[in-house]
Amino acid sequence: MPISGFPEWLPPQRLIEQYVLDKIRATFELYGFAPLETRAVEPLDQLLRKGETSKEVYVLRRLQEDPSAPGGDDALGLHFDLTVPFARFVLENAGKLQFPFRRYQIQKVWRGERPQEGRYREFLQADIDVVDRDTLPFHYDTEMPLVIGDVFAALPIPPARILVNNRKVCEGFYRGLGLADTEQVLRTVDKLDKIGPEKVAALLVETAGASDAQAAACLKLAEISASDASFVDAVRALGVDDPLLDEGLGELVRVVEAAAEHAPGLVVADLKIARGLDYYTGTVYETQLRGYEQFGSICSGGRYDNLATSGTERFPGVGISIGVSRMLGLLFGRDALAVSRPVPTCVVVALPNEELRPACDRIATALRRRGIATEVAPTAAKFGKQIRFAERRGVPYVWFPGVEGAADSVKDIRSGAQVDADPATWEPPAADRHATVSAG
Amino acid sequence: MPISGFPEWLPPQRLIEQYVLDKIRATFELYGFAPLETRAVEPLDQLLRKGETSKEVYVLRRLQEDPSAPGGDDALGLHFDLTVPFARFVLENAGKLQFPFRRYQIQKVWRGERPQEGRYREFLQADIDVVDRDTLPFHYDTEMPLVIGDVFAALPIPPARILVNNRKVCEGFYRGLGLADTEQVLRTVDKLDKIGPEKVAALLVETAGASDAQAAACLKLAEISASDASFVDAVRALGVDDPLLDEGLGELVRVVEAAAEHAPGLVVADLKIARGLDYYTGTVYETQLRGYEQFGSICSGGRYDNLATSGTERFPGVGISIGVSRMLGLLFGRDALAVSRPVPTCVVVALPNEELRPACDRIATALRRRGIATEVAPTAAKFGKQIRFAERRGVPYVWFPGVEGAADSVKDIRSGAQVDADPATWEPPAADRHATVSAG
Repeated sequence: MPISGFPEWLPPQRLIEQYVLDKIRATFELYGFAPLETRAVEPLDQLLRKGETSKEVYVLRRLQEDPSAPGGDDALGLHFDLTVPFARFVLENAGKLQFPFRRYQIQKVWRGERPQEGRYREFLQADIDVVDRDTLPFHYDTEMPLVIGDVFAALPIPPARILVNNRKVCEGFYRGLGLADTEQVLRTVDKLDKIGPEKVAALLVETAGASDAQAAACLKLAEISASDASFVDAVRALGVDDPLLDEGLGELVRVVEAAAEHAPGLVVADLKIARGLDYYTGTVYETQLRGYEQFGSICSGGRYDNLATSGTERFPGVGISIGVSRMLGLLFGRDALAVSRPVPTCVVVALPNEELRPACDRIATALRRRGIATEVAPTAAKFGKQIRFAERRGVPYVWFPGVEGAADSVKDIRSGAQVDADPATWEPPAADRHATVSAG
Repeated sequence: MPISGFPEWLPPQRLIEQYVLDKIRATFELYGFAPLETRAVEPLDQLLRKGETSKEVYVLRRLQEDPSAPGGDDALGLHFDLTVPFARFVLENAGKLQFPFRRYQIQKVWRGERPQEGRYREFLQADIDVVDRDTLPFHYDTEMPLVIGDVFAALPIPPARILVNNRKVCEGFYRGLGLADTEQVLRTVDKLDKIGPEKVAALLVETAGASDAQAAACLKLAEISASDASFVDAVRALGVDDPLLDEGLGELVRVVEAAAEHAPGLVVADLKIARGLDYYTGTVYETQLRGYEQFGSICSGGRYDNLATSGTERFPGVGISIGVSRMLGLLFGRDALAVSRPVPTCVVVALPNEELRPACDRIATALRRRGIATEVAPTAAKFGKQIRFAERRGVPYVWFPGVEGAADSVKDIRSGAQVDADPATWEPPAADRHATVSAG
């Protein structure tokens, strides 16, 4: 039986997922990100360093293990993201890595949250990160949206918009405004989409020591949004001054301007974006897919200067993560993606009779050696039935072995056109070679 | 800290693994196997249907869940192979699948066993299976070794030998010999490699009701091995007669002969191969890598006629599974695989000064658009340092942007050769485009 929150795609959907993953990987590699995988488990204490996520963690126990000792020092849990394991991996292997270290990581993660549309308990993420020793140049913050923009441009999906902000802008602004507990202000403003401006204002007064005027200024800041550097003037017009605010505005301008050159319309500075997780220290990213805005971000990340730190060692990083299952789940929910066939097979070799199976296998081998995915028909049924076998799978070609000295022939079962063919030389049109994915 | 049994590869090893996985996938797809993934978890009762593996299962619990109720009806465990989940998937989705259904599945599995060389608690498997409704033609049993042979032929690894047997040969032989508890005989003979022939003979007498002569005959059968159909005569010479034995011998001959034509030397009939798991009903496969025989099988599988069964529905299948982590762990342990570079990057664009970064980014974009993996240097350090940055990663080319009207140039940092180049047209030699893997 299906288990709520643990999605399983049927073959056509899985083929689409594989196609999407291949595009993601190819783009990541074009930017020089190296593949990495970390184990699925982390020590529980590692996973619980940020108290907020504790409720989401799946703990592991061997069935034969003493059940009275779960949660002990050596207890393991499934990772809930790929950033925390990556930071741990970098600290553990720093001596063997070349910095700045660029890696991508495409893996399942698990969270014991209540499942809902586009929210799963097991899901696939595709992350890129760059970390360096001691300091990480800021230009990597500007690179992240460009990579993601290239990924999305390679996919038949609705246009994506990456919303960018910078924690330094918010913290500097709140501080310049005279609010001391900037973290609490940030956490409260982060609830804007959920509870609306009135409640946020009331909460700011109640829990962050803000006056009505200060709360109103925080909300004004959160309203600012622009796809060019004009947001700077809008912030300045609020009359707050602070060196951290200046630094953040300078950084945010660089991200927006680099993206505007690379892919106009891709990136928008949106000053209400905060990202709940505590470890971000500068740039933060969220991504909306046009038509799916109400489901929230499908690709998020940011700059973290203090996540991979131990003793005197410090590895600041910046990264972004595509929520692959989340994105596909939403698109599948609206039949927004289609695949030309649910199998890799390009040719089915028809089988005149079982005695000819070795000859048919040789034809299949010849085609495969030239990269053409081929199956031999399962049984020597009537040719009409064998053609329907191919048809039901969307396989475009059926190959008929020549008998009694006749030449082989190949039939395009969509058009019915049939031509003589030699398995050593025949080529399908490039568009038929592989299954292709398009907007549904 | 590393966790025993949960391997993590460093970037060069992970790049090799990715290369190997790509070859495996490409070969599977050439044979028309469609990609599939199942969730990582199964209901515990599903996983424990075969009592033997119960000690290996990892049970999941949400951290906030009531710890007094683990192991309840809805308890989940991590899957320990990909065959049991696949059988469950087929039963669950039979109405939406086209039969015979061919799928490949490349995923992590988990077993709480004691770790040792090439044995992990978390590891990657690459499986192919074919299932059909009611009956599955035997020729699929002959296809499995051919696919695997093609996979291994595409990899720079020692030659592989696939050892094949058929449960019907053993069961028919034991029955023809007059032994009733054929399962117990099979389980005992399966221990040959571990405890040797004397102890197996003693155990057969002790636990399976065999006479000394019957035990000796069982051992004689297990000694038979041949890379052609000659094993049939060797079995006949033992003077046992049984219809199931005849059926099994006929099947085994077909597997051996199909492989002898496709890839001479690949498949050997080896009549001691049994495979511990109970669900196999006919053909069984194991695979040895030359020079690594003592570590056991790196690729195993077989025919299962009764695994996916519910009520009146029955989906017999045959499949084989490459133990990817196991194989790579052994090869890495002897430095038997090498990669030309531990990053995808083919070109590093040198950065004359930070003001030129946008121009360097444009060069990188132009190269990437033509499929050439490119990074821009992290900082505008001296060119010598930037060249060393590329060198340390094994990146073959450094691109120098032309300044003051001069042309761009690209340097092969292995040979030192430097030529004028245009990012819109320059092509690296095909061998340099991607990292390549070779025998170490």
